[in-house]
Amino acid sequence: MKKNILFFIFLAFSSAALAEDGYRLWLRYDKIDNSILLQQYRNLINSFVTDGSSPTLRVAKKELLTGLQGLLGKKISEATGIKNNSVILFTKSSSRMETKGVNYDKLGDEGFAIFSLKGNIKNVIAITANTDIGVLYGVFYFLRLVQTQRPISDLNITSSPKLKIRILNHWDNLNRTVERGYAGFSIWNWHTLPGYIDQRYIDYARANASVGINATVLTNVNANATILTQPWLEKVKALADVFRPYGIKVYLTARFSAPIEIGKLKTADPLDDSVQSWWKEKAKEIYSIIPDFGGFLVKANSEGQPGPQDYKRNHADGANMLADALAPFKGIVMWRSFVYNPGSNDRFKQAYEEFQPLDGKFRKNVMVQVKNGPIDFQPREPFSPLFGATPQTPLMMEFQLTQEYLGQGTHLVYEVPMFKEVLRADTYAKGKGSTVEKVIDGSLYDHDLNGIAGVSNIGNDINWCGHPFAQANWYALGRLSWDYDLSSEQIADEWIKQTFTNNKNAAAVIKNIMLHSHEALVNYMTPIGLTHIMYNGHHYGPMPWGNTLHRPDWNPVYYHRADSTGIGFDRTEKGTNALAQYKPEVRTQFEDINKCPDEYLLWFHHASWDHPMKTGRTLWNELCYKYYTGVDTVRSFQQQWNRLEKYIDEARFTQVKQLLNIQVNDAIWWRNACLLYFQTFSKRPIPAPYEQPDKTLDYYKSIRILFAPGN
Amino acid sequence: MKKNILFFIFLAFSSAALAEDGYRLWLRYDKIDNSILLQQYRNLINSFVTDGSSPTLRVAKKELLTGLQGLLGKKISEATGIKNNSVILFTKSSSRMETKGVNYDKLGDEGFAIFSLKGNIKNVIAITANTDIGVLYGVFYFLRLVQTQRPISDLNITSSPKLKIRILNHWDNLNRTVERGYAGFSIWNWHTLPGYIDQRYIDYARANASVGINATVLTNVNANATILTQPWLEKVKALADVFRPYGIKVYLTARFSAPIEIGKLKTADPLDDSVQSWWKEKAKEIYSIIPDFGGFLVKANSEGQPGPQDYKRNHADGANMLADALAPFKGIVMWRSFVYNPGSNDRFKQAYEEFQPLDGKFRKNVMVQVKNGPIDFQPREPFSPLFGATPQTPLMMEFQLTQEYLGQGTHLVYEVPMFKEVLRADTYAKGKGSTVEKVIDGSLYDHDLNGIAGVSNIGNDINWCGHPFAQANWYALGRLSWDYDLSSEQIADEWIKQTFTNNKNAAAVIKNIMLHSHEALVNYMTPIGLTHIMYNGHHYGPMPWGNTLHRPDWNPVYYHRADSTGIGFDRTEKGTNALAQYKPEVRTQFEDINKCPDEYLLWFHHASWDHPMKTGRTLWNELCYKYYTGVDTVRSFQQQWNRLEKYIDEARFTQVKQLLNIQVNDAIWWRNACLLYFQTFSKRPIPAPYEQPDKTLDYYKSIRILFAPGN
Repeated sequence: MKKNILFFIFLAFSSAALAEDGYRLWLRYDKIDNSILLQQYRNLINSFVTDGSSPTLRVAKKELLTGLQGLLGKKISEATGIKNNSVILFTKSSSRMETKGVNYDKLGDEGFAIFSLKGNIKNVIAITANTDIGVLYGVFYFLRLVQTQRPISDLNITSSPKLKIRILNHWDNLNRTVERGYAGFSIWNWHTLPGYIDQRYIDYARANASVGINATVLTNVNANATILTQPWLEKVKALADVFRPYGIKVYLTARFSAPIEIGKLKTADPLDDSVQSWWKEKAKEIYSIIPDFGGFLVKANSEGQPGPQDYKRNHADGANMLADALAPFKGIVMWRSFVYNPGSNDRFKQAYEEFQPLDGKFRKNVMVQVKNGPIDFQPREPFSPLFGATPQTPLMMEFQLTQEYLGQGTHLVYEVPMFKEVLRADTYAKGKGSTVEKVIDGSLYDHDLNGIAGVSNIGNDINWCGHPFAQANWYALGRLSWDYDLSSEQIADEWIKQTFTNNKNAAAVIKNIMLHSHEALVNYMTPIGLTHIMYNGHHYGPMPWGNTLHRPDWNPVYYHRADSTGIGFDRTEKGTNALAQYKPEVRTQFEDINKCPDEYLLWFHHASWDHPMKTGRTLWNELCYKYYTGVDTVRSFQQQWNRLEKYIDEARFTQVKQLLNIQVNDAIWWRNACLLYFQTFSKRPIPAPYEQPDKTLDYYKSIRILFAPGN
Repeated sequence: MKKNILFFIFLAFSSAALAEDGYRLWLRYDKIDNSILLQQYRNLINSFVTDGSSPTLRVAKKELLTGLQGLLGKKISEATGIKNNSVILFTKSSSRMETKGVNYDKLGDEGFAIFSLKGNIKNVIAITANTDIGVLYGVFYFLRLVQTQRPISDLNITSSPKLKIRILNHWDNLNRTVERGYAGFSIWNWHTLPGYIDQRYIDYARANASVGINATVLTNVNANATILTQPWLEKVKALADVFRPYGIKVYLTARFSAPIEIGKLKTADPLDDSVQSWWKEKAKEIYSIIPDFGGFLVKANSEGQPGPQDYKRNHADGANMLADALAPFKGIVMWRSFVYNPGSNDRFKQAYEEFQPLDGKFRKNVMVQVKNGPIDFQPREPFSPLFGATPQTPLMMEFQLTQEYLGQGTHLVYEVPMFKEVLRADTYAKGKGSTVEKVIDGSLYDHDLNGIAGVSNIGNDINWCGHPFAQANWYALGRLSWDYDLSSEQIADEWIKQTFTNNKNAAAVIKNIMLHSHEALVNYMTPIGLTHIMYNGHHYGPMPWGNTLHRPDWNPVYYHRADSTGIGFDRTEKGTNALAQYKPEVRTQFEDINKCPDEYLLWFHHASWDHPMKTGRTLWNELCYKYYTGVDTVRSFQQQWNRLEKYIDEARFTQVKQLLNIQVNDAIWWRNACLLYFQTFSKRPIPAPYEQPDKTLDYYKSIRILFAPGN
C-alpha cells in the first residue's frame, strides 16, 4: 500500500512537470477521472479484434489502442477471435464478422455503425462500415463517447456525413508565413520535406480524421506557381502519403499564370491551345506523383491575382480549362467567388454580378466556393445572395476559422453560432425551407458535388491554434460539415469535455462563455450591422475613420457612411439596391427600415441617429448600449473564468486568463474609439451611467500596431 | 500488488501517449531509471530549506522541487529548520545558516559552493553563494549531478564563471522571421507582448540559467529602430521582468540611424550634438522602463547597415557616442567587428584593418565583438588575427550556434570541438601561452569587461532548436562560457545524459557521433582549408562555381581560386600577405607551404594539384579522400544511430534517423558537386575504388533550393 501511494504521488508530479501545452488538442485520452465510470468502462473492455490490415485499419487500431489504454489506464490486448468484453472493427466485405442487421446501404462510403452485439458473447461493441475509412471514423466516434463519459453498454449508432468534401484551406505561403495566420507560422516545413516527416503531419491527420475532415488545400489562395514544379510536388506527395490512411486528400491552389511563370509560355489565356495542353500535362504529372490528388482551389481576378479576365475570358472559361485537365483523373476545381473588382456601385453586389450570370456554364467537376457573407468574414454578415441563385452550379461554403476580423489570435470567439446563422438562413430559392444548408449539401438542386471549406486557423504554435479556444473552431468545422444539424451547444459540449474537463459545473461555465462569445465580439466591434471598420491591412483594432486608401471599398468610411443625419449603408432601392439580389421573401425581411432586424439594420439602411430601435432605445443610444454590453460581457467572461482555477490545469488557466485580459482591453479600445468617432457625427452624449472614455479620439487614432501577424 | 502492476502499466502508456517532443531540453527531470541509485538518492533527500524569499530564491526553490520530485519520484517537503536528509539553500548574508568553511571571496558575484554539511545532523547538502543568483546556479548544478547520476553523498564543490557576459544573440526580426534561423520562427511573439507571457519565455530563462547564460540580445543585428520606441520597450520590459529572477539581463540591437528613423532628426552623425542628446534621452527612457537594461549590440557599416562611416566618422566615434549615453546607467556597448567593405584586397584582412588601428580609442564600457574566424562562421577557420592585437580594447568572442554554413537545421554538428580549436589557439600576443581564451577572459591584458556571445539557434519549433542535437550547441555555449576548460567530451557527456539517456553504452555511441560530427562536416563540405563555397544567399548546399555576384568577395571562386595549376588562396607575402596580421610565431606555422597544417593549407596557399600532403597523398587525391571520408563518416553515424533504437524514445529516434538520412544525401551532393567541379581544373580522376558520382556537374549546378529558411 505504501508503494501505491508513492505511485499516486509520482503521477501527480509527473503530470505537473509535463504541463498541458495544448498539443494534444481534443485527443488527450487522459485517464477517466470518474472512478465509478472508469471501473464500468474497464469492466466492459479488455480486448479488441480487427479484421484486415490496410494502412487505414492499422491507424484505426493504433488510435483505438492509444485512446482506450489512455482513457482506461489499462492494457487492451489484441485478440484473434471475438471474446467477451471486446471491441471489434470490421468492414462489410470481411466475411468473418457479424454483419446482420446493419443497413450498409445507408452508411455510404464514409459512414459507420457502432452497436452492441447481441448473442452468447457478452459486451461486444462492433464498429463497422463499408470502407476502412468508415471504420476509422467509427473508432474516433467511439473514443469520443468514452472521452465524454457517455454510456457505451447498449449502443446502436449509425452516422454518415451530410457533405462530401469537408476541407481545410490553408493560406500558407511557401516561405512558411501564413496569410491571416495568428498561431505562429506554417506547419508545412517545405524545406525539410520530403525527407523529414514531422510528427505534426501525422497528428494533423489524426485530428482531422477525428472530426471527419477529409480534404486539405495546403497552399495559399494567393498562390505561388512553384508548388506545381516537380521538386515541390514530391514534397506534396510526402504529405499526401502521410494523410492517405486517414482518408484525407490533398489539394493545391493553382496560380492562373503558372503556364507563364513555370511553363515558359507567353500567355495563360484559358482558350489558348498551348495553355490548355500545358495544364493537361501538368495534371498528368501531378497524378503520376499523387494518384489520388484532389484538385485545385483557385482565386482568380481578385485582389491582384491573375485570372481569365486578364485575357477577356470569364471565370467559367478559366475554371473549365482546369476542370478539363483534371477530369480524366477525377479531380475537381473549387473556384472562389470572392471577387470585387472596382466596377459595381456596391462591393456587396459584385460576387453575385460576376457569378450568377455564369450559372450553367461550368463543367460538372467545378464547384464555386462562396464566403458565407457578401463582403469578407465580418463579425456578422447576412448570407451571400449567391446561395440559392445558381441552380446549375454547386456552391461550396467558405467559412473562416482563422479570426481575421474576429479578434485574431487573442480573442475568445466560438464561431459556431455565427456559422449556424448562415447555414440556417432561408434563401427561399425554391420557396420556404430553401435553407443555405440545402443549397450547399446539394439537396436543393440535386448536386452530387458538395462541401464546406474552413480557412484554417492552424499554425506551428505548440497548441496549433494560438488561443486555446480557437481549437474549438477547427473542431467544429469538421463536426458541422459532417452533420450541420448538430447544435452550437452540442459541439461546444463535446469539445469542452474532451479538451478541458468532464466536470459538469466547470464545463457549463466554459460552455456559457463560448456560446456568448461571438455576440460579445459583434457588440464591442460592429454592432447593429456595422461592418469592415477594422484597421487597414492587418485588421487588428478599430479604424472607423479610415478614408485614405485609394480604393473606396477598402476604406471603413465606405461601409459605415456615418454623417450628421445618421449611419449605415442604404442597400434598398433608394440606395444601391443590393437587396434585389435576394429573393423577395428575403428582401422583405430587410427592406423596410422599421421591420429590418436590429442586428442587420446598418447593413441595409442609413438610419437616423434617433431611429427607434426594437429595444425602445434610439439608434445612438442602442449603439452605446451594444458597445458597453460587449465590454461588460467580456468582463463577465473574466469573472467566470477565474472561478475555474481549480478545475483547469495551470498552464491553460493562466494562458486564457492573460488572453481574456487582452480581450477586455481591446474591447474597451474598440468601444471608446468607435463611440468617440461616431459621436463626432451624432453629436449626442454617451448616456449615463456608462463610464466615459478616459482617452481622446486623437489618442485612439494615434495607435499603430506594427508588425501585426498574418499581414 | 495487483493495483501496483496496474500503475506500472499506466505509467508506461501515459509516457507513450506523451511523446518526447524535446521541449524540455536537458531539464527533463524524469525519474532516475537505475533503481539502486534511485533508492540511494531517495534515502538522502527528504526535505529542503530556503533562507530568503527573493524572486530568484523563489525560482531556485521551485526548480529544486520540480527537479527533485521528478528525478526521485517522491514528494520533497519544505522544512523550516535543518533536518536530516535535506538540501539547504542560503546566501552568505543570511545569518541562520552554516557558513563556516566557505571561502565566499572566491565565489564572486555568481559563483556557488555545494558541500555536504558535517555535524550532528546527517545528510545535509548545502548550496550557498554570495548572491541569490549564485544559489540558483548552484541548484541547477546540483540537479545536473542527480540527473547525470553522479554521487551526492560527500560533496565539496565550488564553481564560479570564467567570463562575465555569457550572452545569446538572437538575430530575430520584429515580424518573427529569424535571420539564419533554422528552427522555425522567433520565440518572441511581439504582437501579444506585453499582455501575454508565453510559458516559453519562462522556460527559456530556466534553460539559460541552468547553463549559466546571463544575458540576451533580443533583436537582429540587422536592426529595426522600432524596438527602441516606447510601446516596444514596454514589450521588452515584460520579457526583462520574466528573465530577471533567472539572472538574465536584456540587451537590444541599436540601429545607428534610429535618430533619423524614429527621432525625426536629419542626421545620425555621432559627433552631432542633437544626435548625442537624442541617444542620451533614449538611454534615459530605456532605463526608466528597464532599470537593469544591459546595453546595445551594434552592427554598423557592414552589409548595408548604417554606421558612423556614413558621416566620415570611425567605429570608435560611433561606439563611444552610444557608450556615453549608456554609461550613467552602467550599460555597455558591444560593437561588432564583422565588417568587410570592399576596400582591402582580401576580405580576411578587413576587420583587422578597420579595428586594430582604433585600439585605445574606445570608451571603457565598449567591447568589440569578434567572430571566431576572419571570414564568417565557416566550418573551419583559423582564429581571427584581431585576437591579441588590441591590448587596450576588450574583445568578446562571437560564436555561431545556428548552423548557417554548417548544415543548418538538418545536419548533426556538435560545435564544441570547433569552438575549442579557436579558444585554445595561441595568439602569441604576449609570448607563448597567449591563448584566445586569455584574450577574451580579460586576463591577458587585464580587462574587466569580458564575455562570449553565441548567435542563437533557438526558434519556435517545439524542441526549440529544430535538430534534436542542435540543443547541445546552446547547452555548450553556456557551459563553455562559464568554464572554457571543460572538454568537448565532458560537455557532450553531461548533455547526453540529461537529454537522452544515462545508459552507458548508448551514451558512448551518441558521444562518439557528436565528437566526430564537426570534422565529418568539414570533410564533406570544405576540407583542407576550403572556405565559403556554399550556395549564394541561403548558403544551403554547394556552389563552388558561383561567380555571378557583383562583389568579388561574395563569390565562391574568390575563396577557392581553383585553376589548372592548383587551388587555394595565397595569403603569404607573395599573395595578400594577410598572414602578416598574425604574430610571427603564428605566421611561421602557416606561411611555409610544406609546414602548414593540412587542415589550413588552402586558407593560406595556392597549392599545386600534386602538392604532397602530410598523409603522403597528392592534394587532389587528398581532396577526394576527405570528401569521401566525410560521406562515409555520416553513413557510419547512421549505422551507429540505428543501433540505439531500444535506448531512445521513438519520437526522437525517428526524428534523428530521418535527419541523418537527409545529411547523408546532402553530404553526397556536396562531395559530388565539389569534386566534379574541381575536377574541371585538376583534370585528374577520382581514384579507385571510390564510387564515381552518378550525376553530372550540370545536374548539380541545376539544383535550386527555393524558399530556404533563414534567408
